[in-house]
Parts: sequence; C-alpha cells; structure tokens
Amino acid sequence: MPKLDPDKAPVRTGSIYPQPYADEMAGRSSLRLGELAGLTQFGVNIVTLAPGAVASLQHWHLNEDEFAMVLDGNLVLAEGLRETPMVSGDCAAWKAGVPVGHRFENRSDAPARFLVVGTKASEEIATYTQVDMKVHVAGGKARFTYHDDTDWTGPRDLPDGGQT
Amino acid sequence: MPKLDPDKAPVRTGSIYPQPYADEMAGRSSLRLGELAGLTQFGVNIVTLAPGAVASLQHWHLNEDEFAMVLDGNLVLAEGLRETPMVSGDCAAWKAGVPVGHRFENRSDAPARFLVVGTKASEEIATYTQVDMKVHVAGGKARFTYHDDTDWTGPRDLPDGGQT
Repeated sequence: MPKLDPDKAPVRTGSIYPQPYADEMAGRSSLRLGELAGLTQFGVNIVTLAPGAVASLQHWHLNEDEFAMVLDGNLVLAEGLRETPMVSGDCAAWKAGVPVGHRFENRSDAPARFLVVGTKASEEIATYTQVDMKVHVAGGKARFTYHDDTDWTGPRDLPDGGQT
Repeated sequence: MPKLDPDKAPVRTGSIYPQPYADEMAGRSSLRLGELAGLTQFGVNIVTLAPGAVASLQHWHLNEDEFAMVLDGNLVLAEGLRETPMVSGDCAAWKAGVPVGHRFENRSDAPARFLVVGTKASEEIATYTQVDMKVHVAGGKARFTYHDDTDWTGPRDLPDGGQT
C-alpha cells in the first residue's frame, strides 16, 4: 500500500464514556490511520488535543500493549500524581496488565498531537484509576462497571481519589 | 511507565539475512523501543538509515500487520517498481497477508529515520519479492527457504527479477 493520505482517514470525536466523563473529553479528535490501512491487529491513531483537552481518563489496559510518541506541541503525561512534560519525539509505552494509570493532557495554549498504537485484543478490560470505573470490551461492545465489576450507574469517587 | 529514555534502548545492527543480502543492509541500525518498555505484542523500533542504506529487502508479512512513520530525513518507499518519496510525518501501512513487497531506501546524503511497528505473531513467514527467498519464523528461530519452501542454499533470482 502506498503512502497513507491522512485526509482520507476516518476522524473520531466524542467519547464512549458515560457522562459526566464524556464531556471531559471535549477538544480531542482522533485520526484512525490503522483503520484507513485496513489493519486489524493493532490500532494506530493520531490524536489531536486542543488547548486544555485531555486524551482520556487515566487508565491501564489488561490485555493490550500501548505505545505513544508525541508528534508536536507540548503535552503532559500524567500517571497518578506523577507528571512528565513531553515534546516532539518523546515516547512512552505501557505493557499490558501493568496497573499504571496514564493519560496525556494539553495544558499549553496551542494544539498538540501524539501517535498512539494499541493492540486490538479480542477481549479487553481498561481500568480507570482516578474514578471508580472500568470498561469491559468484547465483541465490539463496551460495558462499564465499577472496580468491583458491578454495573456502573453513576459517578463514584475512589476513597483516596485514585491518587495512589 | 514514564517517558522512555532512548539512550537505554537496545540497538541492533547487522542482519539475520544470509549473505550476500546481509551485507546489503550495511548502514542500518534499529533502536528497540518496544523491547525497552517490555512490550511483547508488537515491536516498536526507530530505524536509522545512513546515506545509501536500505531498511530491508522488499518483503511482505503473512501474519503480521506493519505500520511506519517517517521521523526525519528523506526516504523513498519502494514497492516493486513503484517509488514514493516520503518525509517527516508521512505514514504507510501493510496489512498482514497482502503480497505487496516494500522497503525504505535512503537515497539522500543525510541520515534518515522512521518509526516502525509490527505485530509479534507466534509464527510468521516473510516473503522477499525481488529475490527467491522467504523466512519462516517460529519459536524465535528463523529458517530461510526459496519461494517453493525448499531450503535456501544460495542466492537465486526470480525469473522476472521480482518486479511484477
């Protein structure tokens, strides 16, 4: 396949999160390069974060390796209370099953972009570490639960604010 | 895991190709970022090509999706006789099983780098499209054969030079 034309890649905005978390993802958009190329084994997205936007709730994946490289702009990698400034060319990765919650935040006044690659496992659980929520994904469907695996029915903070 | 320190990533030079093809890979080195991060589901490497160097023989993967993004410098993506100039930010991808041989070549007079991601399948066959060779990888071992799966014992050109 020749060079990918990013103008032809599907763009995803919005969020599958239930409210109020979906609204917290405003200002994020995702260019689905892997999908454009027909890849099925891992996803490849270029995520653009407007000033003030965040890429996700802090989370970790049970079954899926994840890798990210900052393309441009100034981002903060937040992992619990640890914050790491990252610029173009900086990389980070999270091995499946390692319970380190993480997300990118754009605290700058200009847009920023990063490339993110993640395995497409047939079943996946992502755990959000700063709120009492998990998502179970199987067969293309997502089910949200609390950390104790009971159905999610509304926001519930963690006892320690999820900072540990 | 915090930001990756590229200075700590394993660097691979050389080639597993038999001669004379191994020598043709001179000027290529690979920074194993995925390995540094302990990822097992896909590989993530930053490949540096010195002026005149090539990344591989033209090949395609039977079982492994592959994605690449040029980071800096000027590269040519060669796919059979089709040649596509690529610069920083340009991306290409190859879905597993699609028989399109491809490789990057640095025909410029400055080093160039690209990021490459590939699934780590438990078993894999890569087919080289411009010479009569395949590699079968299983259990961490590589076995080279001709296209007809008989053991490889020395270079053999394809009838049409592999250009079709």
